[in-house]
Order: sequence, then structure tokens, then C-alpha cells
Amino acid sequence: MTSIVEPDAAAGHADEMDIDTAAAQRAYELDRRHVFHSWSAQDLIDPMVISAAQGSYVWDGHGNKLLDFSSQLVYTNIGHQHPRVTAAIAAQAATLCTVAPSHVNDARSEAARLIAARTPGMLDKIFFTNGGADANEHAVRMARLHTGRHKVLSAYRSYHGGTELAVNITGDPRRWPSDTGTAGTIHFFPPYLYRSAFHASTEEDESQRALEHLEQVIRLEGPDTIAAIMVESIPGTAGIYLPPPGYLQGVRELATQFGIVFIADEVMAGFGRSGKWFAVEHFDVVPDLLTFAKGVTSGYVPLGGVAISPEIAATFGKRVYPGGLTYSGHPLACAAAVATIEAMEDEHIVENAANIGETVIGPALQGFASRHRAVGEVRGTGVFWAIEMVKDRRTREPLAAYGGSSPEMTQLITEAKSRGLLVFANFNRIHVVPPCNISAEDARLGLAILDGVLDLADGFAA
Amino acid sequence: MTSIVEPDAAAGHADEMDIDTAAAQRAYELDRRHVFHSWSAQDLIDPMVISAAQGSYVWDGHGNKLLDFSSQLVYTNIGHQHPRVTAAIAAQAATLCTVAPSHVNDARSEAARLIAARTPGMLDKIFFTNGGADANEHAVRMARLHTGRHKVLSAYRSYHGGTELAVNITGDPRRWPSDTGTAGTIHFFPPYLYRSAFHASTEEDESQRALEHLEQVIRLEGPDTIAAIMVESIPGTAGIYLPPPGYLQGVRELATQFGIVFIADEVMAGFGRSGKWFAVEHFDVVPDLLTFAKGVTSGYVPLGGVAISPEIAATFGKRVYPGGLTYSGHPLACAAAVATIEAMEDEHIVENAANIGETVIGPALQGFASRHRAVGEVRGTGVFWAIEMVKDRRTREPLAAYGGSSPEMTQLITEAKSRGLLVFANFNRIHVVPPCNISAEDARLGLAILDGVLDLADGFAA
Ligand SMILES: Cc1ncc(COP(=O)(O)O)c(C=O)c1O
Ligand SMILES: Cc1ncc(COP(=O)(O)O)c(C=O)c1O
Repeated sequence: MTSIVEPDAAAGHADEMDIDTAAAQRAYELDRRHVFHSWSAQDLIDPMVISAAQGSYVWDGHGNKLLDFSSQLVYTNIGHQHPRVTAAIAAQAATLCTVAPSHVNDARSEAARLIAARTPGMLDKIFFTNGGADANEHAVRMARLHTGRHKVLSAYRSYHGGTELAVNITGDPRRWPSDTGTAGTIHFFPPYLYRSAFHASTEEDESQRALEHLEQVIRLEGPDTIAAIMVESIPGTAGIYLPPPGYLQGVRELATQFGIVFIADEVMAGFGRSGKWFAVEHFDVVPDLLTFAKGVTSGYVPLGGVAISPEIAATFGKRVYPGGLTYSGHPLACAAAVATIEAMEDEHIVENAANIGETVIGPALQGFASRHRAVGEVRGTGVFWAIEMVKDRRTREPLAAYGGSSPEMTQLITEAKSRGLLVFANFNRIHVVPPCNISAEDARLGLAILDGVLDLADGFAA
Repeated sequence: MTSIVEPDAAAGHADEMDIDTAAAQRAYELDRRHVFHSWSAQDLIDPMVISAAQGSYVWDGHGNKLLDFSSQLVYTNIGHQHPRVTAAIAAQAATLCTVAPSHVNDARSEAARLIAARTPGMLDKIFFTNGGADANEHAVRMARLHTGRHKVLSAYRSYHGGTELAVNITGDPRRWPSDTGTAGTIHFFPPYLYRSAFHASTEEDESQRALEHLEQVIRLEGPDTIAAIMVESIPGTAGIYLPPPGYLQGVRELATQFGIVFIADEVMAGFGRSGKWFAVEHFDVVPDLLTFAKGVTSGYVPLGGVAISPEIAATFGKRVYPGGLTYSGHPLACAAAVATIEAMEDEHIVENAANIGETVIGPALQGFASRHRAVGEVRGTGVFWAIEMVKDRRTREPLAAYGGSSPEMTQLITEAKSRGLLVFANFNRIHVVPPCNISAEDARLGLAILDGVLDLADGFAA
């Protein structure tokens, strides 16, 4: 295949961008006075102004150009300011910004059609939400009412959103401050060979033992009490660890065997990020419910949703689905989704993500793993990769503790930024998660910068 | 004051609109195939296509023009397709659609400034969300961590959102199917003189007894276990019953006395609907947290948020606030908020809402109450009014049971629609909730249609 996007083909970028530094300074001051930031101690942050963005690049308030290897929060799958999508937003704004969820709207209908055509299996009914957290909340409600059961099993090392139920389902430290212990959420160990909870040393063993573990948890919690198993098809923020062969199929089979609803969270993994439209396609698995957000509009307008199996949709055929939100199926957001999907299709952006992963990022990261002693493991697919940083390759001691940061990690991120590269980092990991339509040239550029930063990291490692 | 908006001044509307009926038919068919609707039994609905909208009017898929007395879900406070806001959305789309919440963005800074300048007291820090439910979820999290307590008190006859915690805080039947009994949510009786829970017959008694009741609930639940009291400043969907004199001040005092965080939900009541920027202003009360959504952008782009007191913001000065969402402070949404607020200010839209309420809707509804025996009570302020329909004025038996509908209510709504009026109805109530910038002429037109529909209703009443 030769569908790698040429530099600037999909969403051109200017080398020089006229940045109004005084406006940026004012934005900064107002931000510090009036904006309360998520996941932060308000007095201890010094946020960067982003004044402009184009394709795979952003410009800060001083006019510095940065290559965006973070896709912001891993969602600008078609890069910044794709002209086709910004035009579609302007056109929909001029036509009809909003109608209530109870009515019919053509943008919403078309978005639902295009999404349903791409989700696996028969997941043909779409319930729209504003983002990922509420998509997961509603998916759980559907599962609970469909099964008449209450508990939700989910994996440690996962993120499912910031609202109360979603954060309780989450299996990372962001749950801790909100853990009610009453939400009916139970966490199991996912397969993660590099730090195996199962004393496995091969992918096959890890997969099989993780499934045995999950089956035990199901039996010990009581199958008849479990409404849903929710997993990220490929866990994202938690570390981009690909499920080993057979794992997701095994989860699917356990869910079916015990009458449990299988919910695949594709909020981060979906819409091209993994090199397929949805990550479950890598594993030939069809969940009962699939949740999405982020890539569906590339974040240009907030949108999320749940794709629903015919069986679960039928549960709410004659019986009311007791859930909703004011902006369900928002026309402006749906118009952005339509344009995003069409752009991804026409410009072969999903194929580009796959090819960039196979031919550029994958090989480069393998090189890092062999050359840099601070690199413990690299893993990923498409434009969805993690570099696990360690102090010591033998002990695998992480360069930052689970749930925390470290001066070393902070220094690496700052260094990358000062060299013109914006990265997504979490604990001891640096993620390589650029837009799905990044050019090979830009990907190589960013990887070269990262290579240099890892030289520095090697100084921290034994 | 003479700031009533002249017909078509704020957002012109065409009498005739070219509706593509074939496109509408296709939208309908795709909707039925692929869109899963909120709060509905999927097979039992026959949703209306909305093909166009302008100012206070919408056009259905057959080209019928309807006066929108519902403001969709009570959120198009500046009417449909306000040219200033649609232009601002297009301009922001062309400039910069999205940046992650951790960065600074000028549209977000400016929106936060404009909102903070309008919220009462010192609620000067804004945490942005996507909508109302997540605003309330995050407000509760802030309150819980600020106080170190868990329980949340809220009123029966209230709506706070569709996610799990928000729907558990909700005090209407939409909570029932999701009531976990474990969320730490307790419901008390609000003042509601027409159906007093306190055997009161005057507003003063109702207010005082409701406060005594609330104090008892606080004492019996244990003040030290209660993180927050959340109330809609003016309960909306539940019936637009204005708190009687002294009530909200009393709640404020109880909250202060017991160290409980007072959260005012202004998702529906805020941004002009009540004839003030925020409904708490009617009562001279400053909550600790104020949540908003809907009117902040008139729903043109999904946005919600929490305005935060200095004390609560300070709790998260050196300590991380453990919550967030991908689209917190979304630039496109914030640009829509900026334009909406500026349009409301420049066009005196809040004043218009107050005047329309005082000079047009209020008097007309008083007339309905005296002339129509099916009208039990009318109440409201600004463009925020309810007509309570009864079978019998003496017994006050409602025209539809609490939590349900009735053939009579359905017939009234259908009849209004066939006469060109889109109304918002809930149980036995018809709400008069047009845009805040509706012209006096359009308001009178809608009220005349409603008058005729109430003639029909009188046939159902003793
Ligand atoms: C896998 C996954 N699920 C859910 C969410 C929550 O989405 P949102 O932030 O839009 O609520 C995220 C956000 O990062 C995510 O990565
Ligand atoms: C008072 C109130 N609070 C919260 C909400 C929930 O807002 P959203 O539907 O945007 O989640 C609503 C929605 O109608 C509301 O009226």
C-alpha cells in the first residue's frame, strides 16, 4: 500500500504563523484569573498558550512552532484545522446549529448512518452523547437494564471518564479520590506482559492466564450479578498495551457464556488511531456496545456516543430507555462527524495511520528500544504507541512511580517541548500519538527529536 | 423600560422557507434506522423532522412553520440561528476549533471572564464541562472534596441530569430506573404551595415550613455527613415553581450554618430565562457553586460549567482537583458563549425576557387561569412559565398523573402543534418557555393559540 499522506497534502501548514503575542499574554492572564483547570492544582500550573494550529503543528503564544505528537488529548485524528471539516462546521452553523434530541435532523441521521456503517457487526443504532464519559455512563445503564444486573467489571490500568460512575469504572489513580466503593464496580487484572500479574513470560500464557483470572473474578463475584464487562479495546492513557492474541476473543466468549454485556470503550482507540476504524477489528471481535468520542469529530465539536447491538436496542423497543442529555445528537457536532468521516475515507487517513505505524513509527521505536537503555519497552499499532521509560532495564523499575511523575520525566517532556515537540506523557511513559494523517516526513522529524531526548534519558538509567 | 425586542429585530425569520421534503423524508428514515433516542421507547415514537429554524420559529420536514414556545429543551435563549453567534462559530472554526484543556486558549479565557463577570458574588473561577449533567457531577465532586463529606441533599421535583450521579440527585421519575440507593443522595421536599407537603396555605408559611423541614433532614441525616445541598434556583422541568420569599436565603443560611456547600443549578434557569442573568439574583443569594449550560451558548455548541467560590477554588490551589473531561473549555463552544453573551448584552435580551414576562406572558396566563377551568395554576417569571392543568380545580387532580402522560395531555400538545405552536410539556403541565428575545408580537401569537387549545382542555375538566 502506498497511501502515506504527503507532507501538507491533507491539511497544509504554514511554517510561519502570525502570532499576536499581546493577545496571547492577555489570554494567559485571564486564564489564570478565571479558568479552573482539570486534573490540576490550580496554583501549581503554568499552562502554555496555544494561539494557532494547523495540521500536525501548533504555535504557542510566543510564536514557537511545535509538532503535536500528542494530538492534544489523543483526539485530533485528522490534525488541526482540516479545511473540509471547518467548512462543514461553518456551513452547518449557517444552516441549523441545534435541534432537541427528540426531533429528527439530517446531520444527525447521516452521522448515525456513517458511524453504523463502520462499527463492527450489527452495531447499527447510535445513541449520541457529548463525550466519552457520558457515552460510557449510558452504555452501563443500557447494560444494567438489559441484564437486570448491577455490577460492572473493568480492568485496572484503564480510563473510562471523569464523571462519577465512569471514574469509578476507571482503573487508574484518577479513580482514587472519587472511589465510593458503592458504585458496583469491580476491577480485574488485564494482560500486560511487560509487568505480568500472572507470572507469564509469553504472550500466549499472558492471554490465557488473564482469561482464567477474569473467569475466576466472574465466578467469585457471581455471574448473575454482573451487568457488563467494560474494556478499552486497546488501553490508551494507561499504556497502550495491545491485548495479546486470543484475549479479546476470550473476553467476548466469557461475556456470552455468562450473559454479560461486553462493552468496548473505543473513545481513544477508535476512528483510525490503531490503523483500523475501530481497534476491535484487529481482534475480530464484536462487542455488544461500543463507545466512541474524540476521533469521531477529531474533537472539532464535542461529540461521543454508543453503538448498540440489535438485542440491546430491542430491550428499549417497547420500554423507555431512561437516559438522555440536552445535546444528544447535536446537529453541529454531527455535521463535524460527517465531514470528519468523509475526509478520513477520501484521504485514506486510516490506511495512513496503519502505514505510518508499520513503516515509520514502529521501526523507529524498535530502534529506540535497542539503542536507549532508558527504554524498557515500546509497543503499539497505527499512530498509537507507548515508550515505557525505566531506570533499569533488568529490574524494569519505572522512571516515575505508578500514579505519579518524577523530575526526570518532567525534564524529558520539557526538553522535548524546547526542541519543538509536544508529547503526551503519563507516569513513566511517553506516548507517540500524532494525528492519523501525519506525513511520514513529519513523523520522522518528531521521532528524530524524541531520539535526542532519549539520549538525555539514558543518563537517568542504570 | 422599553427594551422589548421588535419582531424580527434580533434574528430575522422568513415566513416562507424552502424545505427539501425529500431530504427530510430520507433524514426521517435514517433516523428510524440508526438513531437511538433519549428517554424513549424506540418503536413507539414518531419524531418530527426539523428542517430549518430561524429566531423563534422552526420548520418541520413538510414545510410547516411552528412557533417554538419550547426553545427546544428550554435552551435556545437567543432564538435559532442568531447571525452574530453563527458568524462567531464560523470564525472560530476557521481559526482554531480545539485545544486540550491543559493549554490556554483566548476564546476560553474570554468566555470565563464574561461568565465570571455575570455570576453573583465572587464566583470568579469557571470550570467548563460539556453540558448540565457533568457540570453538576463536577460540582458535587468539588463539594465532597472541599468538605470531606459524602452525602448530597436535593429536592424532590427536580432534574439535575442524566449521568448516574446526576440522575440519582434528580428528584423526578427519571431517577427511578437508575436509583442505586448507594450514591449518597437524599431527597427533601421543596416549597410548592399549590401542592404543599407542609399543609401550608400562604407563601410565608410554605417557605418557613419548608426550611424547618430541610433543617430537620439535615439534623436527622447528620450535618457532618452532608457535602452539598443542590437545588435548582427555580426548578424548571419539574414545574417552574418559584421559591417563596425567604426560602433560598434560608437554604443559604442553613448551608452556611452547617458547613454545607450550597450548589445552585442554573442550567435551565440561568442566562436570562428568568428575566435576570441568573435566577438567584431574584432572591439576593450567592451560592458556593453555580452550575450552568443551555443558555450559555443557547445550545449552538454544547457547553456547560461550574462557577466556583474563592474558598472552594482555594481547596484546589495546592491540591489536585481530580476531575476533567477531554473537551473542558472547548474553544468553539467558548467562542459561541462569548458571542451569545455579547449578543444578549447588546440587544438587551435579558431585559426583554423580563419585560415579556411582566407585560405579555404573565398577564395572559393570569387571564387563562381566570377563564379556563382546566387551568389549576399559572406561575413563572421572565420567559419561564408553567400552566398546571387539572381535571378539577377544587381537588386539583392533575390532567396527567405524576410521572406519566395522559391521552388528554397528548391531545392538547398535538392540537397546539397542528395550530402551529411547539410547546414543552411535562406530566400535567404545559410550559411557556420561548426564547428570551421573542418579540411581543410573537409571544401574543403563541399565547392566542394556547388560549384556543385551553378551550379544548376545558372539555376535560369538571
Ligand atoms: C478510553 C477512554 N474512555 C473514555 C474517556 C473519557 O472521554 P471524555 O474525556 O470525552 O469524557 C477517555 C478520555 O481520555 C478515554 O481515553
Ligand atoms: C436544571 C437542569 N439541570 C441539569 C440538566 C442537565 O443538563 P444536560 O442535559 O445538558 O446534561 C438539565 C437539563 O434539562 C436541567 O434542566
